[in-house]
Amino acid sequence: MAKNQSQLSWKKRLHEIIYEADTPAGKLFDVILLVAIIVSIALVMLESVDTIGKKYTYELNIAEWVITVLFSIEYILRIISISKPSKYIFSFYGLIDFLSTIPKYLSIIFTGTHSLIALRALRLLRVFRILKLARFVQESQHLAKALKASRARIFVFLFFVLIVCIILGSIMYLVEGAENGFTSIPRSVYWAIVTLTTVGFGDIAPMTPLGQFIASVIMILGYAIIAIPTGIVSSEIAKSHELNLNTQSCPSCATERHVDGAIFCHHCGHKLNE
Amino acid sequence: MAKNQSQLSWKKRLHEIIYEADTPAGKLFDVILLVAIIVSIALVMLESVDTIGKKYTYELNIAEWVITVLFSIEYILRIISISKPSKYIFSFYGLIDFLSTIPKYLSIIFTGTHSLIALRALRLLRVFRILKLARFVQESQHLAKALKASRARIFVFLFFVLIVCIILGSIMYLVEGAENGFTSIPRSVYWAIVTLTTVGFGDIAPMTPLGQFIASVIMILGYAIIAIPTGIVSSEIAKSHELNLNTQSCPSCATERHVDGAIFCHHCGHKLNE
Amino acid sequence: MAKNQSQLSWKKRLHEIIYEADTPAGKLFDVILLVAIIVSIALVMLESVDTIGKKYTYELNIAEWVITVLFSIEYILRIISISKPSKYIFSFYGLIDFLSTIPKYLSIIFTGTHSLIALRALRLLRVFRILKLARFVQESQHLAKALKASRARIFVFLFFVLIVCIILGSIMYLVEGAENGFTSIPRSVYWAIVTLTTVGFGDIAPMTPLGQFIASVIMILGYAIIAIPTGIVSSEIAKSHELNLNTQSCPSCATERHVDGAIFCHHCGHKLNE
Amino acid sequence: MAKNQSQLSWKKRLHEIIYEADTPAGKLFDVILLVAIIVSIALVMLESVDTIGKKYTYELNIAEWVITVLFSIEYILRIISISKPSKYIFSFYGLIDFLSTIPKYLSIIFTGTHSLIALRALRLLRVFRILKLARFVQESQHLAKALKASRARIFVFLFFVLIVCIILGSIMYLVEGAENGFTSIPRSVYWAIVTLTTVGFGDIAPMTPLGQFIASVIMILGYAIIAIPTGIVSSEIAKSHELNLNTQSCPSCATERHVDGAIFCHHCGHKLNE
Repeated sequence: MAKNQSQLSWKKRLHEIIYEADTPAGKLFDVILLVAIIVSIALVMLESVDTIGKKYTYELNIAEWVITVLFSIEYILRIISISKPSKYIFSFYGLIDFLSTIPKYLSIIFTGTHSLIALRALRLLRVFRILKLARFVQESQHLAKALKASRARIFVFLFFVLIVCIILGSIMYLVEGAENGFTSIPRSVYWAIVTLTTVGFGDIAPMTPLGQFIASVIMILGYAIIAIPTGIVSSEIAKSHELNLNTQSCPSCATERHVDGAIFCHHCGHKLNE
Repeated sequence: MAKNQSQLSWKKRLHEIIYEADTPAGKLFDVILLVAIIVSIALVMLESVDTIGKKYTYELNIAEWVITVLFSIEYILRIISISKPSKYIFSFYGLIDFLSTIPKYLSIIFTGTHSLIALRALRLLRVFRILKLARFVQESQHLAKALKASRARIFVFLFFVLIVCIILGSIMYLVEGAENGFTSIPRSVYWAIVTLTTVGFGDIAPMTPLGQFIASVIMILGYAIIAIPTGIVSSEIAKSHELNLNTQSCPSCATERHVDGAIFCHHCGHKLNE
Repeated sequence: MAKNQSQLSWKKRLHEIIYEADTPAGKLFDVILLVAIIVSIALVMLESVDTIGKKYTYELNIAEWVITVLFSIEYILRIISISKPSKYIFSFYGLIDFLSTIPKYLSIIFTGTHSLIALRALRLLRVFRILKLARFVQESQHLAKALKASRARIFVFLFFVLIVCIILGSIMYLVEGAENGFTSIPRSVYWAIVTLTTVGFGDIAPMTPLGQFIASVIMILGYAIIAIPTGIVSSEIAKSHELNLNTQSCPSCATERHVDGAIFCHHCGHKLNE
Repeated sequence: MAKNQSQLSWKKRLHEIIYEADTPAGKLFDVILLVAIIVSIALVMLESVDTIGKKYTYELNIAEWVITVLFSIEYILRIISISKPSKYIFSFYGLIDFLSTIPKYLSIIFTGTHSLIALRALRLLRVFRILKLARFVQESQHLAKALKASRARIFVFLFFVLIVCIILGSIMYLVEGAENGFTSIPRSVYWAIVTLTTVGFGDIAPMTPLGQFIASVIMILGYAIIAIPTGIVSSEIAKSHELNLNTQSCPSCATERHVDGAIFCHHCGHKLNE
């Protein structure tokens, strides 16, 4: 029984180190993990550069194995230290941890599988886990809240932009035609998106005077309508700043969003908790 | 008379299904219509892609006929189910429904008329009808209201941008000249719009030092004045948000700025005047 | 004396028609002038298009003379109808009117002077005069006020952007060098402006990995700092919306900017005029 | 002792002229310094232009020496006039002054050292010192304050953008591949940044339909998320504006939201509590 207890406390300590960041050991673990993740991403990026990838194949392969083994250990420790392993394994981060560790093992079986690189890129998503520790969480929660509140509006806006782009793309396809690079409607729609969002690659550009006139209209339109998402998000963030309305809940009728400093509920007249 | 009544109720039910979205049958109709519209748009887009258009001419033709017949039936049902058909036929959506259905029939008479594609693109506008059902209406109404309120300002702004572009385009035409791609004033104005809106295709770019200097001024100008429409819309949307707090004054303690719909004063708990 | 009086009233009526827009005749004059200005601008633009300019030289020349004579008459009438002609002649619009009318006359003496086109482009500025009539004035005054209030801030911002561009341009000149298109510091600064303002022509683009890394930093920087002018103007426009503060002046102590609905001056307690 | 005192006052006067801008002599010094800095920057820029640099080598060399000697004198005067020279020498501006003066002297020893140009570009940073005098300080402090307050949020945002770009770049590398210009992941990430920030050079552009589809998603994403930093800064600047209205409550009628510095209630004229 004593053994069992020490084992429990051992598991508990491991859980604290791996899943929390309040203790010095937990912070150290997070910092090491962050470094390992960044190194692993840098490895994937460097390997893709032709001159580096061919010259240092051997070194990169070893480094990759070291990272993979480290991640494997971490993955196993995470499963051990949690009371319900299945909860972790099938969670969002659990799946990412698994998928970003497995490619190197698979590469032994399926040699030369180039596309496993995509799985390795999933390691990037692991960075978000580390960020739990810092003050960034609060800030990003603020942002996430503002974005969530304006989600429906932004969706309506993007949907509207998409329809405008399809209509304008179809028109440009008829006006410019295949001889000026507008070879199909999907490609013209792609061009319309490139133009409306003010990206402007220039790989396709209108040649006819009428096409250039319509392009001008699209650009000025894009210049004007970029104001809309900005306005939506701005006002949403500004609202969260306005300390006038807090999220206090009335103890009597549960009405939320009271004016700051309110003493009585504006809905039922009941005194609010301080 | 009973027959007449049953016919009336039959018409009424059809009207409910087609024009409204409150009943399950009405919702189903809208979903089917939405799918049909998206499929029909996809068909137009696919047909324009050369490799697909030539390979699957037969299949696309049949699919197009199916869609056209479906839309024709819908069009006829809409006319039958409404009490005053002329009101629908000459409405905005009535005309779009007609114009987006007719091209395929016309293609029998006028074979090979490429430009009918433009009419078929009108189908896209039909999408807006479906959107009546969702919560999107409320959101888009919010946006539309904010845009309507700032319409005059945005128009003044766009007019100002256009004049600036014409002046700058004329100057660039003189500075760069035809040998650097600025072959005419309209083309130079087109370039000025491309630059001021920060699109920057790069199909035309200044070559002379003076031209590049003026271009720099235009770009920094464009970078600064994009703030204007954004500011207009932002403040307008923010205003529409502020309706949560009204300026109602408490009859007992004269506290102002209550939450909309407040029944009791948040300061003294006194009942507010309605 | 009667003659003198009738002459005076004739002058007065002419003044009303030309300088004001309250009477029907005055409105008609403004509309005709607006059309003439737009036509004259269109002529300059069309003439610059090579294919049109060479084909219709004769017609364009005649049309240009008609416009010039019309503008000359208008110019003379403006001088006659005003009590102090010198005040008009040396005003901003007086100079523009003169400079945009004279080029055609000069073209008789100096044949083939291409650069007179720049003077003719000044006609565009005349458009602003017409706009006095509409409700646009109020809207543009709103905008102008907001811009004026944030002038100093925007200037600081643009100055800052310029310095950043010069520094980044110099760095890119050293990193990329002449072989990648960064042939001189001014040209590199031009590229930095093109990049920071998110225009991105692509006529010059970094080739070296380090150059592309710095370019990435510049782009993300530009993406972030575009928020600054927008924020400045947004808050300024929002402020002008806030009807809470009006420009009422206290009759006792001349303090301005009172809360709307204020009955007493917040500075001296004196009752405000209604 | 008299000598010592006169020396002290001489030092004091010099300190006033060089370090302050309240006296006419101090203002004159600042203006001369500003001109010298701008001239010195112009020299560096002109020298880099190949045609000018080779033609006027001799003149530019002399002008450069004049500027260098002037800056050397200023540097020595700054050291002399301050009571604790070491405090100046190792300050931010002290180091910049030193580093931007030294290159010309070094060029005698190390001939043809091209990269010293980078040090000379440091002169630009000296411009900021001059700006201390103007009202710009106040404005830029406002901006700096707003930016500082939203620093954490903007950092979170930029970090998020970077991760999105790395993920999207990796995907595009797999989709497009080396044959379409996406030769490595770092290069693809560079492209993703170019696209997301709506710069769009066009040196690399997607060729495959799938690549163009992903690019469209990135562009619309970039178009939408540019709203976030703008919203952050807007609301922050707006907040700094709102300090005009405080939430002071009138002791007599309980009216809230008075203008900052209000002495009397604008509603009942009662004196406000301080």
